[in-house]
Amino acid sequence: MNVNGRGTAVTDRAGLEVLAREECLQLLAEAPIGRIVFTDHALPAVQPVNFAMLGTDIIIRTSPESKLAQAIRDTVVAFEVDDYDVETRTGWSVAVVGIGRAVDDPEELALLESLPLQPWAPGPKPHFIRIMTDIVSGRRIPKKS
Amino acid sequence: MNVNGRGTAVTDRAGLEVLAREECLQLLAEAPIGRIVFTDHALPAVQPVNFAMLGTDIIIRTSPESKLAQAIRDTVVAFEVDDYDVETRTGWSVAVVGIGRAVDDPEELALLESLPLQPWAPGPKPHFIRIMTDIVSGRRIPKKS
Repeated sequence: MNVNGRGTAVTDRAGLEVLAREECLQLLAEAPIGRIVFTDHALPAVQPVNFAMLGTDIIIRTSPESKLAQAIRDTVVAFEVDDYDVETRTGWSVAVVGIGRAVDDPEELALLESLPLQPWAPGPKPHFIRIMTDIVSGRRIPKKS
Repeated sequence: MNVNGRGTAVTDRAGLEVLAREECLQLLAEAPIGRIVFTDHALPAVQPVNFAMLGTDIIIRTSPESKLAQAIRDTVVAFEVDDYDVETRTGWSVAVVGIGRAVDDPEELALLESLPLQPWAPGPKPHFIRIMTDIVSGRRIPKKS
């Protein structure tokens, strides 16, 4: 938890708990699915993907012909993970904004291919996209007391 | 399921099942949480929200001071819902692209206030955003046979 000088949770003006970068990165590392936000033919687009972390970078596999691969070439993208509980109406989300780039370097590709990252979607996905977590923000809806 | 002339599921070139608009709207109506995608200070932004449907429109409540309310004024936005199962590595997603607008008309506001839509986040949320489902697309990762 992100705490202030008085040892209590930091909240934003909407009353949501503000998560520290370290906690956000931890939640990212544990999430099975994230949603990548990009621009497709000048319109906003969003697509769920499974992913892996390499250090603080987000790694996605796709096919070279995919919309995603074609749209993301040294582009600023957003990436989001969340989890929520319908019963208690609580949840958290982490959003990343950073440069996404297609990986072309053979040495880097070899490294990424060694990651435990098997796409859920069918078909070969030899193409890697790497997103830097330049801006990371997280919020949590606290349990009602 | 969206079926072709041979009675089998329509798939895209990645091998994902293509969901028909009607099924997408049904999945939207059943989802407790969606993610709205917009532009915040020229950067892509994504935020989970609970929502209601009014006919085929998506209705969101927020506070007038929120980033969301300030960013969405007759703007094209995206909206996404999904569900997935980690065990079977299956899931579906529905993405909407449409005009989002702040609701100012008193009669329309009265109608929206009558919806069963109580924000999960704390604090008053008297501000309504209405998103038209102009473009709707859905995909499902089928169970491995």
